[in-house]
Amino acid sequence: MDLKITFIILMPLLGVVLCSKDPEKPNIVIMFADDLGYGDLQAYGHPTSHTPNLNNLAKNGLLFTQFYVSSPVCSPSRASLLTGRYQTRSGIWPGVFEPDVVGGLPLNETTVAEILHPRGYHTAIVGKWHLGVGKDNMYLPPNQGFDEYYGIPYSHDMCPCEICFYPNETCLNDCKDDFTSCPVFDGLNIVEQPADLVTLHEKYVNRSVHIIADNAARGQPFFLYYAFQHTHHPKYAGKQFRNSTIRGPFGDALAELDDGVGRVMKQLEDSGVLENTLVLFTSDNGPSLRWENIGGNAGLLKCGKGTTYEGGQRVPAIASWKGRITPGRTVELTSALDILPTICSIVGVPLPSVTMDGVDISSVLFNGGKSPRESFFYYPTTVRPEYGIYAVRYKQYKAHYYTQGSANSDENNHDKDCRPSTKRAAHDPPLLYDLHQDPSEQYDLSNDTNYASIIDQINQVKAKFEETMVFGDSQMANHSPYVEPCCNGPCDPFPECCKCTQSEKKDIHLRFIP
Amino acid sequence: MDLKITFIILMPLLGVVLCSKDPEKPNIVIMFADDLGYGDLQAYGHPTSHTPNLNNLAKNGLLFTQFYVSSPVCSPSRASLLTGRYQTRSGIWPGVFEPDVVGGLPLNETTVAEILHPRGYHTAIVGKWHLGVGKDNMYLPPNQGFDEYYGIPYSHDMCPCEICFYPNETCLNDCKDDFTSCPVFDGLNIVEQPADLVTLHEKYVNRSVHIIADNAARGQPFFLYYAFQHTHHPKYAGKQFRNSTIRGPFGDALAELDDGVGRVMKQLEDSGVLENTLVLFTSDNGPSLRWENIGGNAGLLKCGKGTTYEGGQRVPAIASWKGRITPGRTVELTSALDILPTICSIVGVPLPSVTMDGVDISSVLFNGGKSPRESFFYYPTTVRPEYGIYAVRYKQYKAHYYTQGSANSDENNHDKDCRPSTKRAAHDPPLLYDLHQDPSEQYDLSNDTNYASIIDQINQVKAKFEETMVFGDSQMANHSPYVEPCCNGPCDPFPECCKCTQSEKKDIHLRFIP
Repeated sequence: MDLKITFIILMPLLGVVLCSKDPEKPNIVIMFADDLGYGDLQAYGHPTSHTPNLNNLAKNGLLFTQFYVSSPVCSPSRASLLTGRYQTRSGIWPGVFEPDVVGGLPLNETTVAEILHPRGYHTAIVGKWHLGVGKDNMYLPPNQGFDEYYGIPYSHDMCPCEICFYPNETCLNDCKDDFTSCPVFDGLNIVEQPADLVTLHEKYVNRSVHIIADNAARGQPFFLYYAFQHTHHPKYAGKQFRNSTIRGPFGDALAELDDGVGRVMKQLEDSGVLENTLVLFTSDNGPSLRWENIGGNAGLLKCGKGTTYEGGQRVPAIASWKGRITPGRTVELTSALDILPTICSIVGVPLPSVTMDGVDISSVLFNGGKSPRESFFYYPTTVRPEYGIYAVRYKQYKAHYYTQGSANSDENNHDKDCRPSTKRAAHDPPLLYDLHQDPSEQYDLSNDTNYASIIDQINQVKAKFEETMVFGDSQMANHSPYVEPCCNGPCDPFPECCKCTQSEKKDIHLRFIP
Repeated sequence: MDLKITFIILMPLLGVVLCSKDPEKPNIVIMFADDLGYGDLQAYGHPTSHTPNLNNLAKNGLLFTQFYVSSPVCSPSRASLLTGRYQTRSGIWPGVFEPDVVGGLPLNETTVAEILHPRGYHTAIVGKWHLGVGKDNMYLPPNQGFDEYYGIPYSHDMCPCEICFYPNETCLNDCKDDFTSCPVFDGLNIVEQPADLVTLHEKYVNRSVHIIADNAARGQPFFLYYAFQHTHHPKYAGKQFRNSTIRGPFGDALAELDDGVGRVMKQLEDSGVLENTLVLFTSDNGPSLRWENIGGNAGLLKCGKGTTYEGGQRVPAIASWKGRITPGRTVELTSALDILPTICSIVGVPLPSVTMDGVDISSVLFNGGKSPRESFFYYPTTVRPEYGIYAVRYKQYKAHYYTQGSANSDENNHDKDCRPSTKRAAHDPPLLYDLHQDPSEQYDLSNDTNYASIIDQINQVKAKFEETMVFGDSQMANHSPYVEPCCNGPCDPFPECCKCTQSEKKDIHLRFIP
């Protein structure tokens, strides 16, 4: 904690030193969807989705066609979004945070919120955190640079979930009955447990809209990180959106998400700050292709969530800033890793003094320019230091050193490479694809001698990157039911006793590691 | 011929009788791409295609997300486009017209051109015909209702092709050396043989633009059917578009096609007829997925050309009519079969007195309304009356009674269902998919008893349709090298002697069946 406090205190001074010109303080809104695939939005070609507000965002913004997240699953992807660093450095591996995991995003990591807070920003997260809870809630957002926090600290299937659709349809999924009910935090207080999924969207969007309206009214720059639970399974939707689309449960959940996007954009407009706000919409990883979800869709990309194929890690992404970002499309190679460095560049703050994997992509956003990013590295869900990177993107090429199916696919998936039963396979030489010509990873070029020198170059890029990689201690290693959030504190019988409605809000709400 | 002549003579009279109000005579432009897949355009989600003019068309037009062609291959799809009837009725089965096939689109079939010509339209086709040549060129467009014809009568791989890219790059494909060189017809004259692929686009687009400018200047209503050779293999492109995109050969060919769309639209605007012209852009079938083409892309749809999966028969489609068609998207079930009846409806002409498979979709085009189409029937490439329909679309559902791979797929396709080696398989009960929720045909519902009554309904719809189906005699049955078009008429050694440049234009240019 000491390091972090020192850093927060020093940041404004460094900022002033570095920026001779008056730096900008635009509001920053990041809207982060969950398990939304490359092919799920109308703007990316889905035939039956209903996403009028995301269509508008795309129409008025810059749509990315080659934007990557650093992991094909949730927690590590979120860690990278907030830190600009691969999850392996911060210890967010392997897999994701279950509610009983003791670890979390290490407090010596610098989040976007910790960059912006000392610059005078009000920093807020609404929605899904999924970077750990920990002893005394030590890893929750209020301890990671966020002034304000409202949401569930993990996925809403990581709890016994019952009702998903208005008025009382049961959830279509394998929710986890062995954990405590999903809590909704407000700051460090649990205000609802279990979360009511049918009304959750309204609560999230109301809070988000309030944050915008309130800060804009006070002329207070703000950072809003709105992390949707949608469209992760189990799908859910309230009164307005249940049966609102022809795409079924997924379509309804997505329509509700889209409503959130629309209401945020409307509030930015109503509050008069659209011309002073950078908005980014993207997703944490590719679509879950498990049968029971009638799930998401990776479009023309191969496989989905949990794999290092394109469907796992290339995601929809749209950036918008009225008057500053020219509407259009970009094919530039970019990543969620680049968000933190780009924000630093915009607000005139130096980068944290750590190994940074992201690059400043301001030139792509504002000038229709080239991305400084030439390469991207794909770590699998089941990261192990002895295997390291599974795949490397270099310019238009992608080399797969290992491939593996995923539990997030259906065992009947038409492409057997995606299936849960497909074990890790090593490739030497690596499988090679030209993603500009063959985005679906259909035609392996590795046996074509014309590409031997490309493979050599990629081998070198890979080796050079892996030399810099120091794996942080895994934060996933230790489990204890005592870190599972419970609104009634230590109570019996656990976890059934952890139930509170908003009217029963209590002061004591934490469970401690004994 | 007699029947047709009678029909043509009677048509204007019938039109006058039926339409008490002054009927409209909008210009009609159909732009028909070749082997362009559902996922190939930016507007349908392709990441690296460059299609600014098709983007504009989509922005200002109505984009269809569930638009089908009646066959997964070329000739039968084109027959249906022009007649509103399934290819099986007209005998355009099985497969496509090779240059030495003796048959063609039967002359007693009524084409869109034969509907419009007697209404006072100038009718023109530029590009690929592929509905037969025949004895004395009897099946070519000038004998099928078209006043004007400029183009190659079939696919440009159905000939020995050598140079595909400016200035002199060889073609990346298995062109067919055993046929005569590809001829370019102007009317019934061959004006160039072999066709120069590097300059072909300019010739096609110049002719198209001229047709628009000339007719518009004279206040003459026109029907332009611009049938691209693009993006069929082998890919080709001239000086302006070779190496113009990051998508390689396919991207360059598509960019050249896109240029054609742009120049047609610009001429419509420059000629002041944009508000009096219905424009439809679509494709004849799904993408060829053969390796050597680094080919097209079906997006999120399963398989491609040659199959009765969605990737074979659901195609991009955009309709535009300034001031009349509201820009947007539609999920309504529609087909190229519906074009003829819709045109009849718009211009106030009765339907030909034959079994018509198309329906009038004016309500979808002009009123944001529902499509009268509830079902669609999928015939395979290798149609055989004893098997009949392979699949049925009914409302949001699709039932596969037979499935089969295709020679137009790669044998290494990740989805084995698409591969050439995958033989016909019968399914009883049929495989069942909900395409609104599962457009990628991943999750078979046929074993779910909740869907038993849906399958019953589809069985009935299928039986009812097949009762009406009278297979026309196959036009593909007879072959003769003497129907292969040759600019030098009967000459030796054939086919090498069939070579002419435009300056050598000859009067005698036909080879007769001896």
